[in-house]
Amino acid sequence: MTKLWGGRFQKSAEAWVDEFGASIGFDQQLVMEDIEGSKAHVTMLGIQGILPQADVALILDGLQQLQVKAEAGELAFSVANEDIHLNLEKMLIDLIGPVGGKLHTGRSRNDQVATDMHLFLKKRVGEVIGLIENFQKTLLKQAEQHVETIAPGYTHLQRAQPISFAHHLMAYFWMLERDKQRYMESLKRIDISPLGAGAMAGTTFPIDRLKSAELLGFGDVYANSMDAVSDRDFIVEFLSNSSLLMAHLSRFAEEIIIWSTDEFKFIELDDAFSTGSSIMPQKKNPDMAELIRGKSGRVYGNLMGLLTVLKGTPLTYNKDMQEDKEGMFDTVHTVLGALKIFEGMVATMTVNTERLHSAVHSDFSNATELADYLAAKGMPFREAHEVTGKLVFTCIQRGIYLLDLPLTDMQEESTLIEVDIYDVLAPEAAVRRRNSLGGTGFEQVRIQLEKAQAALA
Amino acid sequence: MTKLWGGRFQKSAEAWVDEFGASIGFDQQLVMEDIEGSKAHVTMLGIQGILPQADVALILDGLQQLQVKAEAGELAFSVANEDIHLNLEKMLIDLIGPVGGKLHTGRSRNDQVATDMHLFLKKRVGEVIGLIENFQKTLLKQAEQHVETIAPGYTHLQRAQPISFAHHLMAYFWMLERDKQRYMESLKRIDISPLGAGAMAGTTFPIDRLKSAELLGFGDVYANSMDAVSDRDFIVEFLSNSSLLMAHLSRFAEEIIIWSTDEFKFIELDDAFSTGSSIMPQKKNPDMAELIRGKSGRVYGNLMGLLTVLKGTPLTYNKDMQEDKEGMFDTVHTVLGALKIFEGMVATMTVNTERLHSAVHSDFSNATELADYLAAKGMPFREAHEVTGKLVFTCIQRGIYLLDLPLTDMQEESTLIEVDIYDVLAPEAAVRRRNSLGGTGFEQVRIQLEKAQAALA
Amino acid sequence: MTKLWGGRFQKSAEAWVDEFGASIGFDQQLVMEDIEGSKAHVTMLGIQGILPQADVALILDGLQQLQVKAEAGELAFSVANEDIHLNLEKMLIDLIGPVGGKLHTGRSRNDQVATDMHLFLKKRVGEVIGLIENFQKTLLKQAEQHVETIAPGYTHLQRAQPISFAHHLMAYFWMLERDKQRYMESLKRIDISPLGAGAMAGTTFPIDRLKSAELLGFGDVYANSMDAVSDRDFIVEFLSNSSLLMAHLSRFAEEIIIWSTDEFKFIELDDAFSTGSSIMPQKKNPDMAELIRGKSGRVYGNLMGLLTVLKGTPLTYNKDMQEDKEGMFDTVHTVLGALKIFEGMVATMTVNTERLHSAVHSDFSNATELADYLAAKGMPFREAHEVTGKLVFTCIQRGIYLLDLPLTDMQEESTLIEVDIYDVLAPEAAVRRRNSLGGTGFEQVRIQLEKAQAALA
Amino acid sequence: MTKLWGGRFQKSAEAWVDEFGASIGFDQQLVMEDIEGSKAHVTMLGIQGILPQADVALILDGLQQLQVKAEAGELAFSVANEDIHLNLEKMLIDLIGPVGGKLHTGRSRNDQVATDMHLFLKKRVGEVIGLIENFQKTLLKQAEQHVETIAPGYTHLQRAQPISFAHHLMAYFWMLERDKQRYMESLKRIDISPLGAGAMAGTTFPIDRLKSAELLGFGDVYANSMDAVSDRDFIVEFLSNSSLLMAHLSRFAEEIIIWSTDEFKFIELDDAFSTGSSIMPQKKNPDMAELIRGKSGRVYGNLMGLLTVLKGTPLTYNKDMQEDKEGMFDTVHTVLGALKIFEGMVATMTVNTERLHSAVHSDFSNATELADYLAAKGMPFREAHEVTGKLVFTCIQRGIYLLDLPLTDMQEESTLIEVDIYDVLAPEAAVRRRNSLGGTGFEQVRIQLEKAQAALA
Repeated sequence: MTKLWGGRFQKSAEAWVDEFGASIGFDQQLVMEDIEGSKAHVTMLGIQGILPQADVALILDGLQQLQVKAEAGELAFSVANEDIHLNLEKMLIDLIGPVGGKLHTGRSRNDQVATDMHLFLKKRVGEVIGLIENFQKTLLKQAEQHVETIAPGYTHLQRAQPISFAHHLMAYFWMLERDKQRYMESLKRIDISPLGAGAMAGTTFPIDRLKSAELLGFGDVYANSMDAVSDRDFIVEFLSNSSLLMAHLSRFAEEIIIWSTDEFKFIELDDAFSTGSSIMPQKKNPDMAELIRGKSGRVYGNLMGLLTVLKGTPLTYNKDMQEDKEGMFDTVHTVLGALKIFEGMVATMTVNTERLHSAVHSDFSNATELADYLAAKGMPFREAHEVTGKLVFTCIQRGIYLLDLPLTDMQEESTLIEVDIYDVLAPEAAVRRRNSLGGTGFEQVRIQLEKAQAALA
Repeated sequence: MTKLWGGRFQKSAEAWVDEFGASIGFDQQLVMEDIEGSKAHVTMLGIQGILPQADVALILDGLQQLQVKAEAGELAFSVANEDIHLNLEKMLIDLIGPVGGKLHTGRSRNDQVATDMHLFLKKRVGEVIGLIENFQKTLLKQAEQHVETIAPGYTHLQRAQPISFAHHLMAYFWMLERDKQRYMESLKRIDISPLGAGAMAGTTFPIDRLKSAELLGFGDVYANSMDAVSDRDFIVEFLSNSSLLMAHLSRFAEEIIIWSTDEFKFIELDDAFSTGSSIMPQKKNPDMAELIRGKSGRVYGNLMGLLTVLKGTPLTYNKDMQEDKEGMFDTVHTVLGALKIFEGMVATMTVNTERLHSAVHSDFSNATELADYLAAKGMPFREAHEVTGKLVFTCIQRGIYLLDLPLTDMQEESTLIEVDIYDVLAPEAAVRRRNSLGGTGFEQVRIQLEKAQAALA
Repeated sequence: MTKLWGGRFQKSAEAWVDEFGASIGFDQQLVMEDIEGSKAHVTMLGIQGILPQADVALILDGLQQLQVKAEAGELAFSVANEDIHLNLEKMLIDLIGPVGGKLHTGRSRNDQVATDMHLFLKKRVGEVIGLIENFQKTLLKQAEQHVETIAPGYTHLQRAQPISFAHHLMAYFWMLERDKQRYMESLKRIDISPLGAGAMAGTTFPIDRLKSAELLGFGDVYANSMDAVSDRDFIVEFLSNSSLLMAHLSRFAEEIIIWSTDEFKFIELDDAFSTGSSIMPQKKNPDMAELIRGKSGRVYGNLMGLLTVLKGTPLTYNKDMQEDKEGMFDTVHTVLGALKIFEGMVATMTVNTERLHSAVHSDFSNATELADYLAAKGMPFREAHEVTGKLVFTCIQRGIYLLDLPLTDMQEESTLIEVDIYDVLAPEAAVRRRNSLGGTGFEQVRIQLEKAQAALA
Repeated sequence: MTKLWGGRFQKSAEAWVDEFGASIGFDQQLVMEDIEGSKAHVTMLGIQGILPQADVALILDGLQQLQVKAEAGELAFSVANEDIHLNLEKMLIDLIGPVGGKLHTGRSRNDQVATDMHLFLKKRVGEVIGLIENFQKTLLKQAEQHVETIAPGYTHLQRAQPISFAHHLMAYFWMLERDKQRYMESLKRIDISPLGAGAMAGTTFPIDRLKSAELLGFGDVYANSMDAVSDRDFIVEFLSNSSLLMAHLSRFAEEIIIWSTDEFKFIELDDAFSTGSSIMPQKKNPDMAELIRGKSGRVYGNLMGLLTVLKGTPLTYNKDMQEDKEGMFDTVHTVLGALKIFEGMVATMTVNTERLHSAVHSDFSNATELADYLAAKGMPFREAHEVTGKLVFTCIQRGIYLLDLPLTDMQEESTLIEVDIYDVLAPEAAVRRRNSLGGTGFEQVRIQLEKAQAALA
């Protein structure tokens, strides 16, 4: 078939070559944005007197018809027309005749596709932010129920110090808060119109870029037309922010998986977020958590993919940039799904408070209490650490815990230790006394929950 | 709906959760391999007397019917059935009744999916190797026509020394030869059967893994069932090999793009492998080369994605591993397409021999000849280099080239220079004299072409 | 030797194991930040009455001595003391006796190292922002000199439309502006104190985290102690921002390299930013541009490295996180160097205005003018594009350009073409008329330069 | 100072520019290989009569002196001399006078550095292979002691089926076996000489590349000089192979970490491979395992870095390629260290067989036995799975395990169940009966150990 850009060409590409180069297979996801952009463009052409109002009306009417069909899923795209832009233009001309060809006045596919991408991502980032907030609310709700649920706190996956389980959950709240911040800041660079940049140098038509930007709801316009058509920063930034979000989710997922083991049994996932095995009838697998953990790879890969595309490509538009889309679509889909699933998984999980309670009473995670106790009595911390280490070792050899160790044994290592040590070593007390700002003390956790509440408001 | 693994579950997941976890959207690409694997498995179950022959016959007949439908594209897969394995099993049971449930005897989805992946990749790597060879043949054909086409050779994209254009093309031949080698070596680790590894521990049924492997044409079987179900090395290896192949193609693409500029004009691509612009009627863009250059990003990303998935996941099967598929499918598709397109592009491109000839006669790429000339006369190479540098600088100031510089001017810098220097400086002579093994001298290039011919045989 | 944490251990690691785990080889770059952090911590301990003022004075005096030595490069670190924290603590104790051991009261290495990293990166990001601004100023200065320097504008590395060379340079100005924005926004998440988070749960001592944060000049404190010690977002964000910056520099570098070829000759780099060849005396290689292009790989790799480290690691601190440092140090070093070099390279490069002028007069980059001319006369743009394409093809066949084509030949394709077409086709006119907002028209470029000036103010 | 390539240059770079471009900071690690390569080159120049024997003798003597000094660590390299090649050449000339300048006859830094890298990597890959084998031997030794140690086998980190602990360990043996295979195959592409390729086109001197290759012990020579100087495949391949190795180690490390938790307690690491905490005296952290898990990121990053460098760089040598070195050195260092540490960690770890035994007796990992039992009696596997699932659920509700469930209760679900079911459900029996090829049955594991023994022989 005849290409819309075929004037100087003597020979057409074969179908399989066309197919390799065509983007319609995936950029049809931009159909709404492309029509929206065209409407604004042609409206502006009319206002500026570049096209007669009659033509504008005809074109707008045609675009409206296409939009209705698109919403109904009735548009049939063709690889022969390469991409979403030429597909729609062809459909428009078929619908309203050659006047449809005037739509492209003062515009190029280069600024057109950039406009579509900005519109698309602006919408999707809004959705991502909404789902993050939703997830934060669920975390907060779970945390509020577990302020006084004592649990082992870990470093190196070894029990370190007893904590409030709410405190642990809230660590993820703040990661998500930063994720949200970053997505919001990135909007500044997404919410900006490239429309009117033309192929890369602007146009000779007396267009009004501020007008078309306003019609599309953009907050700003690009200051340089060459930058406008070759900038893909906003997509890289989306992929970077999403990689960090997925890193957070992968960490949380790892903990969900570990907590769900027979050995830890700290939580039980709802059946709705677990799956079974085709061969082992007893299995209840935390599939969703595993899948999300794994999906970090896909998003990291998409980021690396686009960074590679940009590496060393000269200005301005190059066909390489067509490769910006699939990774973006995939990441949008992955991030939205992962947030929704994770929220549901956390909302419905059962926290095994008894198991947490007993866990924290049968380990050495209160050893720091003893060291701090000695330090508070004036012993240099390094010595206090040494003394405590020896008492822990004594306990391990006897198969007991610190609370079981007779006072006399303790005093053999240091006479600073008195009978009040047993109160100090109680896990509840240990948590309560860790009352420094942002610490796990119950009082601090309550203050933290209020701060979180405020952050969401 | 009821899950095939649902016995101990009290509650089903909601549809959108199912959808997030389902792989049928992409693993349906394994439909043929899955049926093939099932046929071999059930045949073996019959031979071993694990299933009665009547059951085996029924199941094989059902599988045959499914295969015919699959080939005709008539199977309708459902997200509710999660993946290709459960979809097919459900269809089988619908077709032949509960006896279909016996197919899964002594097998798990874990070894089943691994078997499918091995079968799939073995076939595709074979195709990739075939396309590489095809491309090598085309390169060789182009090279044979340009042994005596003199062209500038570059380092740092600066003209360095004159070369045979065939020599330049052949550099890519050898890169592809290494790519081929690597893919072939990887077959050793692809062509190996995990079938019979069960969920991860083997099975209590008296299966014959060597038999099912033989029926599927595998060269070997895994020695350890836990390794068999959790190994994804063979896919990472495919992605690594493909990343390197794409790196090569991206380098060649970059050169095609540079050679096609108005400024270089070393080649002209066929219209069939170029595209135009929707706004600039004069444009003839090397779109395919750009796209392939860009597609390196996608393949690098797929590699990074899977490496990330594997990082830190404990044995054996985890749901994360479902993420091994899309990147593999995408890479197979990308690599096959890129090789096919590149071959066509190189086969049909026109080499502008006149332009190459004139280019090489109006630069300083013969300067090394002068330095070598002096070194051969006994001047330490470092001095020879210094003298030549000064003469080049003299020429630049006068706006001439070395062949234009009078002998007397040369002799002012070194009396070792005699009138034969002008023969030495002629580009054709420069190429011819660079006759070291593997060098660009015409004689050497011909020897190289013979070697290449032999490598393909 | 005895470890500071060795109390419960019966056996020491061998030297080579220690060496593998030790970080002192690289984290000694944090020496200043570590001392600074300790000073603030101990001052706060004194204010809070946790340590007697006499101890505080002794410790501060010891730290001061260490700081003086550190500045003079006189500290000798030892692998046996693992990391910068234990090395300094050991030195302090050696200097002032056991009282030095009190410094660690209410602090853990986990919050200590996080504090060091925040302090370090805050300083360095400030430097990066300064160098970006400096580079922007240089770009602006070069641009101001080339507003009316007409040059070919490219898409697909094919000549597209004539542009103002200043416009091309300014595209990079705006990329850098976005880079700066991102680094500045990230400061919000760098400029925040983890000090006082302890091992991960806070501390039982009545510390004042706001006070120590204030002493260190931090703008905020972490709200959750577990998050505080396991958060590495701020480093990932730095690496992401740096990857995008390097992507920009790699694109600019690519253009510098292409412009420096014999074939383009658009610019000449200063000798100070070029290098020669050990074998080819005529070579003048744009080594610095190539090296910066290549260094994008290193920064991308560092980003991918840290994302991988974080993937799937449970809370809170894990030894994996020690791997956050080298990539950060390397990226700081790379980015600072690349910005400084690039600024110098652009400041000293010579733009070959004559060559640019002649280039733009001998190509078809004015073809869009003809199409726009016809569209402005009412011909649907798609037809105008077609007509122009045919005329371009006619010219190519005759070996001439559009300005050389007789009016009658043009009119054969469309009678809308009149004699004023020759004015329209003149490259200077083409640039001037592309006067849409952000376009390459001289007037627009001047407005853009003013905007840029304002952005820097 | 005067550069060795400075002839045509009017101006020197400033020191900080030099420093940015200099590679001597890291490529001094190639000092031995560079001297070795020079010796072979000059010897060949003598044999071919290109240099007089007297000169050759002088140069060889000078090189010998440099080698002795290098071994003693007495060479002081200078940034002013850029790289290892020019540093050594300068030292040689200082030592033996201008005749040293003749060493560079018929050679360029481009083939020289490539030669160094091939020599370096060949040696190091040999060491890596040796350490892999060593680690395999240790694994085998541990496995031999634990053939009959029954342990829970996991999928999804949920208990799946009981296994022999030896079987689990052996899964890593086979991963390492594949790693070894890949490194060995890659040697074919490392063990090949680029020497004599010159700057990129070969040389006019009558050199003998086969001779210099033979002197250096190379197995082959490059067939194309342009390929020879721009090929970095062999390094990418090393990084790919190392990434996969690190992926394996990260998985094993994850398991070591999980097994070392208070909750699992399956193993205890030797004190020599653990570390403590500066604040929590009871801690014994699996630091080495964590660090190795984290170091996967660094190696993945190095791979991604070099792939990025290669993306889209035209032939032949470009300065970007200098970026091939640090990632390679770092990976060599990381991989050698990680293998050595891991071997020691596994060799000295204590397997808690009692805990493993009790674990496997208090879970549902024998549920598959019941399903298989029913299937063997003719029930379609899908039904058997369903029945078992229900019985598991019954047990969970009663807080008992399958072995505790009265026969009558079982028979309510299926009358196929008879009293022999209790033998079938015993974990030892479950392992023993899983006797399919490569399965976990004791007999199979013993066969596997023999295979492994054979693979090492």
